Amino acid sequence: MTRILVLNGPNLNLLGSREPEIYGKTTLAEIEGRLRQVAAELGVEVECVQSNHEGALLDALHAARGRFAGVLFNPGALTHTSLALYDGLAGVGLPAVEVHLSNPAAREEYRRHSWTARAAVGSVAGFGPRSYEWGLRALAAHLRDAGR
Amino acid sequence: MTRILVLNGPNLNLLGSREPEIYGKTTLAEIEGRLRQVAAELGVEVECVQSNHEGALLDALHAARGRFAGVLFNPGALTHTSLALYDGLAGVGLPAVEVHLSNPAAREEYRRHSWTARAAVGSVAGFGPRSYEWGLRALAAHLRDAGR
Amino acid sequence: MTRILVLNGPNLNLLGSREPEIYGKTTLAEIEGRLRQVAAELGVEVECVQSNHEGALLDALHAARGRFAGVLFNPGALTHTSLALYDGLAGVGLPAVEVHLSNPAAREEYRRHSWTARAAVGSVAGFGPRSYEWGLRALAAHLRDAGR
Amino acid sequence: MTRILVLNGPNLNLLGSREPEIYGKTTLAEIEGRLRQVAAELGVEVECVQSNHEGALLDALHAARGRFAGVLFNPGALTHTSLALYDGLAGVGLPAVEVHLSNPAAREEYRRHSWTARAAVGSVAGFGPRSYEWGLRALAAHLRDAGR
Amino acid sequence: MTRILVLNGPNLNLLGSREPEIYGKTTLAEIEGRLRQVAAELGVEVECVQSNHEGALLDALHAARGRFAGVLFNPGALTHTSLALYDGLAGVGLPAVEVHLSNPAAREEYRRHSWTARAAVGSVAGFGPRSYEWGLRALAAHLRDAGR
Amino acid sequence: MTRILVLNGPNLNLLGSREPEIYGKTTLAEIEGRLRQVAAELGVEVECVQSNHEGALLDALHAARGRFAGVLFNPGALTHTSLALYDGLAGVGLPAVEVHLSNPAAREEYRRHSWTARAAVGSVAGFGPRSYEWGLRALAAHLRDAGR
Amino acid sequence: MTRILVLNGPNLNLLGSREPEIYGKTTLAEIEGRLRQVAAELGVEVECVQSNHEGALLDALHAARGRFAGVLFNPGALTHTSLALYDGLAGVGLPAVEVHLSNPAAREEYRRHSWTARAAVGSVAGFGPRSYEWGLRALAAHLRDAGR
Amino acid sequence: MTRILVLNGPNLNLLGSREPEIYGKTTLAEIEGRLRQVAAELGVEVECVQSNHEGALLDALHAARGRFAGVLFNPGALTHTSLALYDGLAGVGLPAVEVHLSNPAAREEYRRHSWTARAAVGSVAGFGPRSYEWGLRALAAHLRDAGR
Amino acid sequence: MTRILVLNGPNLNLLGSREPEIYGKTTLAEIEGRLRQVAAELGVEVECVQSNHEGALLDALHAARGRFAGVLFNPGALTHTSLALYDGLAGVGLPAVEVHLSNPAAREEYRRHSWTARAAVGSVAGFGPRSYEWGLRALAAHLRDAGR
Amino acid sequence: MTRILVLNGPNLNLLGSREPEIYGKTTLAEIEGRLRQVAAELGVEVECVQSNHEGALLDALHAARGRFAGVLFNPGALTHTSLALYDGLAGVGLPAVEVHLSNPAAREEYRRHSWTARAAVGSVAGFGPRSYEWGLRALAAHLRDAGR
Amino acid sequence: MTRILVLNGPNLNLLGSREPEIYGKTTLAEIEGRLRQVAAELGVEVECVQSNHEGALLDALHAARGRFAGVLFNPGALTHTSLALYDGLAGVGLPAVEVHLSNPAAREEYRRHSWTARAAVGSVAGFGPRSYEWGLRALAAHLRDAGR
Amino acid sequence: MTRILVLNGPNLNLLGSREPEIYGKTTLAEIEGRLRQVAAELGVEVECVQSNHEGALLDALHAARGRFAGVLFNPGALTHTSLALYDGLAGVGLPAVEVHLSNPAAREEYRRHSWTARAAVGSVAGFGPRSYEWGLRALAAHLRDAGR
Repeated sequence: MTRILVLNGPNLNLLGSREPEIYGKTTLAEIEGRLRQVAAELGVEVECVQSNHEGALLDALHAARGRFAGVLFNPGALTHTSLALYDGLAGVGLPAVEVHLSNPAAREEYRRHSWTARAAVGSVAGFGPRSYEWGLRALAAHLRDAGR
Repeated sequence: MTRILVLNGPNLNLLGSREPEIYGKTTLAEIEGRLRQVAAELGVEVECVQSNHEGALLDALHAARGRFAGVLFNPGALTHTSLALYDGLAGVGLPAVEVHLSNPAAREEYRRHSWTARAAVGSVAGFGPRSYEWGLRALAAHLRDAGR
Repeated sequence: MTRILVLNGPNLNLLGSREPEIYGKTTLAEIEGRLRQVAAELGVEVECVQSNHEGALLDALHAARGRFAGVLFNPGALTHTSLALYDGLAGVGLPAVEVHLSNPAAREEYRRHSWTARAAVGSVAGFGPRSYEWGLRALAAHLRDAGR
Repeated sequence: MTRILVLNGPNLNLLGSREPEIYGKTTLAEIEGRLRQVAAELGVEVECVQSNHEGALLDALHAARGRFAGVLFNPGALTHTSLALYDGLAGVGLPAVEVHLSNPAAREEYRRHSWTARAAVGSVAGFGPRSYEWGLRALAAHLRDAGR
Repeated sequence: MTRILVLNGPNLNLLGSREPEIYGKTTLAEIEGRLRQVAAELGVEVECVQSNHEGALLDALHAARGRFAGVLFNPGALTHTSLALYDGLAGVGLPAVEVHLSNPAAREEYRRHSWTARAAVGSVAGFGPRSYEWGLRALAAHLRDAGR
Repeated sequence: MTRILVLNGPNLNLLGSREPEIYGKTTLAEIEGRLRQVAAELGVEVECVQSNHEGALLDALHAARGRFAGVLFNPGALTHTSLALYDGLAGVGLPAVEVHLSNPAAREEYRRHSWTARAAVGSVAGFGPRSYEWGLRALAAHLRDAGR
Repeated sequence: MTRILVLNGPNLNLLGSREPEIYGKTTLAEIEGRLRQVAAELGVEVECVQSNHEGALLDALHAARGRFAGVLFNPGALTHTSLALYDGLAGVGLPAVEVHLSNPAAREEYRRHSWTARAAVGSVAGFGPRSYEWGLRALAAHLRDAGR
Repeated sequence: MTRILVLNGPNLNLLGSREPEIYGKTTLAEIEGRLRQVAAELGVEVECVQSNHEGALLDALHAARGRFAGVLFNPGALTHTSLALYDGLAGVGLPAVEVHLSNPAAREEYRRHSWTARAAVGSVAGFGPRSYEWGLRALAAHLRDAGR
Repeated sequence: MTRILVLNGPNLNLLGSREPEIYGKTTLAEIEGRLRQVAAELGVEVECVQSNHEGALLDALHAARGRFAGVLFNPGALTHTSLALYDGLAGVGLPAVEVHLSNPAAREEYRRHSWTARAAVGSVAGFGPRSYEWGLRALAAHLRDAGR
Repeated sequence: MTRILVLNGPNLNLLGSREPEIYGKTTLAEIEGRLRQVAAELGVEVECVQSNHEGALLDALHAARGRFAGVLFNPGALTHTSLALYDGLAGVGLPAVEVHLSNPAAREEYRRHSWTARAAVGSVAGFGPRSYEWGLRALAAHLRDAGR
Repeated sequence: MTRILVLNGPNLNLLGSREPEIYGKTTLAEIEGRLRQVAAELGVEVECVQSNHEGALLDALHAARGRFAGVLFNPGALTHTSLALYDGLAGVGLPAVEVHLSNPAAREEYRRHSWTARAAVGSVAGFGPRSYEWGLRALAAHLRDAGR
Repeated sequence: MTRILVLNGPNLNLLGSREPEIYGKTTLAEIEGRLRQVAAELGVEVECVQSNHEGALLDALHAARGRFAGVLFNPGALTHTSLALYDGLAGVGLPAVEVHLSNPAAREEYRRHSWTARAAVGSVAGFGPRSYEWGLRALAAHLRDAGR
């Protein structure tokens, strides 16, 4: 069965209580629960990892080779600063979809550039917790189209 | 019935023949046909407009007030240069989802900034013709969530 | 009788309903009505054109040569992006006064530069609908001073 | 009776003899004389201060609170460099109109940004000595509209 | 017979009267007449289009596919601002030669970058109306060399 | 009893031996000892954490919610590069005071911008080990003033 | 007895009424009163000067040599623009502590750079009127440590 | 008989073997041979100089005064870096036409600015070896038009 | 007899004691004494003014018209920040020579640009107190050459 | 015996499979094996550490003091972003040689700046796995020359 | 026998006496002598050229084609400014290794970018005269690996 | 006898005929003649070299060590572009005075930065041919003061 790694970066464990006027009131656990439902519907499997450590995110990405068909990735603030994650994504060569709860284009200037999206298939942003759902559906379809 | 305006900007009429290594081989008519299928499935209605004229896109946006509940928008190259479309989107106040066939984050520097996305709910990019489909689904869900 | 072309750019047809906290509640028709009153008082004649098309604004400017003595111009968002309108104003050589409802100096960075004002006699900004009135008075006085 | 402070910054005392091809041949005294006439016509009162000292301009602004209803301000070169005057204008909270004899948009790059206009109601520029007159009329109307 | 589209952008209809110290006294009609003579001499055919509308220029480019072998293009001010025209030129894939009456390298900084020339075969600039003639000859030779 | 988390970032464990001409000869243990004394005097309690791992600093910040009333933070070099720490500070919403041994304003250009201070109450810098002491006193007073 | 010059720059005389949401409601006189209390407690003496004139601040700094052991300085907006004050501080060679009521790191971009802090021992910012108190304590301790 | 100096800068002696995918397979000698044919046809005379030394190019330009009527110039990489050649061209005051084999607008950012073209009549670029031929024809016509 | 105003800006009154490793040990009084000697030798008269106030320097410049033939000016730190002094120099139209004790080109980046030198005849820098002497000699010769 | 720490940063564990067209097919284990051979030949000892965690790299650097005479360092992507590693290297004061498999000067703009090399003795780049060997030899010789 | 051109740019003839605190006391002749020894050991031959003339360096590079297998190059200050040398290196297509005595990454900003290294195989920097030796060894190994 | 090298860079041999509105009508030979007169008066000897070759200027500077006590240098356009000349001046360590006929501060932006002046004692600019005379006098005095 197609397996997808759901990777969440720094501060996303705070979801639900962190700046709810920007990020909403849904917790990460609720998002992950919903993703498991959608995965079941799509006939894929998801495994969820969150870390505040760039290194741990890289370790998880590296370990995903051979075990996962694709990555659903919200790198949090590392989106904008981590060249290492970009290199890591390009290095493992797994199709990735970048998701964001908020719409970075409508926020501060320094949130408009994404290192990680440079190595991604595509991105979904601005739909709150639903960004993950659309991202998962889009990734699953992409993997299906690509015959993976 | 919820009505959604599908708006395509300059050069998107060329789809299918224009730089297929970047934009794929699907024509705009095929994309619009597929969107009508998805719309039917979702119980919404779509109307499709394409123009190479910034002014015509603005006219269409203005006329959409009162007639449409939301806008699915691929502004093409105007994404990166048209402050007028940004002002227009903000001015009409309709929920909009920006879609791109390719993943601008993985392309030239000057394609990384979007004026129009500043006034959008969110964006979907990088999934080829499917970007439109995910964008439409995301927009319909957003409208449903918002009770429109 | 001295004739003045009143030219309004993209989105100004939305006035009254567009972001009223920035642009106020007066409609463009009301502004144009007031300008006709002031024109009558000043003994000049105004003709009012609005378009969302840069090209149509250029066509109107070109056609104004020989028919109008000056231009009262609110280029909207094109103020900040249209080198073509700057070239057009310089090309037709008619005295122009640029007007803005809001005060661009107090807004976003990208609204602080005006291409079109480079080819204008002067500018009036920040007085809401009254900016047009002061602009018309200033233009009429300028034309009178210059013996046109 | 509504009282308005007319404030002129560095080098404006040179008017009439300073670079007349840019600034014209009218002296500051003549401008102030004309403003008094216009004020009489409008039923307001003006008091005129000019200084080459940024500090003196700030002192005058501070002292204006409670004594004046608004400020007509040509900060000269300090327009482009004085963050202190911007803070001062914002601090005293009096409605201000910025005026310029020449049209800064048509001059050197470093004259295109105004610190002081960020804290002003609006601006009038490019009409020579008449910029003051239109500025005064616009300020008086603004005060009247605002019920001050 | 080899057919070439001669495309002129905004304000070039003003030629002859627009800032003659920069652009000379020859009208666009005279330039087009001369191009027809040269075309006859070269055994090619030219069709001339001018528009102040970016969208109309794009429409003309798109329509040129299959009908013309190449494009002689003076995009006017859009040279420096229109990413859409660059995308359009790249999209239709027709060999294009960019021409300018004046020498942009010797003018203002903002005229030194050309979006459209990025998608052109080459450029000819600075020879007044003769730029068109040399551009046409160069394009015809290029098409001949390439066996089109 | 009011509890305050004292957080030190990368390389601060080297204090005392690291570039003593810039950072002095006091060790981090000595600074922490002194802070405990001051805390006792102020009637608050401090807990001290140092890590070279951005992720560990974030974990500590997250864990501080509910357990600490405020944070005394010297993020070391991460001050200037870590958007994640800024987001983390804003996310947990605890009052923080940023401290630096040296005076960044008097050092290299790249040490003049602080991401983390954007989410802090205030900062104290340049007083060597005493920066911590003043920072602690200021934070305790701030918490007292705010009734926490 | 150790004497300390307390120097306040432009607009700080407005404290209490100037933008209270940023700067609070305490007046400068109240701050200076509190500083005299703290000074008494510390066994030092303070003399307070405020001016809106950069030149007067420089004159005061120059005159301080030999009469004062250190300077507590809030240069207001001149913080960000006055190279002359930086040169003056470096020229007189007196230990200075820069204080700010608000936290410049959390405000507009142009308030993030300080010329004067380059020549200061250190800085305290963000604690409202208490910034002065902590600054005075830090300066007194610094002077004591340095044996002045 | 009208005499024209053909000047080639650094690395152009490598033509034919240097990066042929960019610069083609024609040697400089072949280009110069072709230019002599065209010159004969046009009734002018050409003298060809190539040097890798900026100084030698300047010496040749200086010596050209009084001996040549114009210069056909491909400065190679010095196009983008040599202010001295720009000053030299302006200093000798001879009409010059700049030519490039490739189309710099379609290459790296740093090849988009030309110092030397600022002092030229015009430029021809992108037509491979034919750029020289069109450049020569354009220069000869320019000299004829100017009566030189 | 030709009269020359010697104008010194902020902090130059500190000369002799201010950062002697940069500015030397000569006092301003000694420099002015030496200038009087040189003036006597040259048959001109000098009057020396120093102020830390930009406004006072402007007042002195304005008052110099009609009374002095030229200005020897060391604007101190205002060299790099005062657009008002540049406008003032241009406004009074007196020939000015800018002098600096140190060589700004060999110092910090922000000392490399001079506003005031834009309106000066020329400049002399780097010779310590002798910069004034050479500046005076150069200015006197310039005035003699110009017949003033 | 002289001991050298070989430190590899993020993603270098992927060597051999990661983008082999850039980084080659040799694995990190093979490189480390080869380094041990070279070390034996040189009479030094190497210990190899790789981590994807910036913090772990810092911990290793800190622990190296007293245990190692020098560091051979390939910081991977952190080369370009980690001010903390630069501070760490400077803080521990061990001689370091930076090595890169590829030649950053020939790659993307953002790979041209190295924070870490600022605190290194020198660097070797572009020779694939051999970069490590030359780096080790150069470091050993440097230590020998310096008598460590 | 494999032959290698050792090329030294401007000012390197001064080695030994030029700023010895940066560049050391070894003369260029000593370095070249050492290189001949190393070459003998490696079984290759070196020929050494130094010039202060960019053009002469280009001439030497061009002449090296067919005569040398590779280039060991220290372009001195031209490293940072000479696009012509970059084009020349790319044009001749010989494998080159760039060497520097000092470590540019630890020096002024303007020494951090290298034009020439863009066209090199790799670089060695910071080891004083030994940089040449390591560079030669690395180049010889590279040539051997590549079968040249 | 003290000997001074007078060094002139590119295009200065054109003096007298080159853009006389900027550089005047005096030839370089006349300037050098005048310098010999002044030298005789000062009891020093001058030797004059002009070259359009950067390399030749460097060769002359290098050869000057031991033979000349100082250098009077007008590097022409190389002032703004030649890092090699800056390094050369710093390398030979001879006191140099930079002179310019025109006042670069009053010209184009790119003439405001001088590489060479960074390594000079000081500069004299804007006095036409007299700049050389004042420069020579200042250099001679500087050498005398320094006891050379």
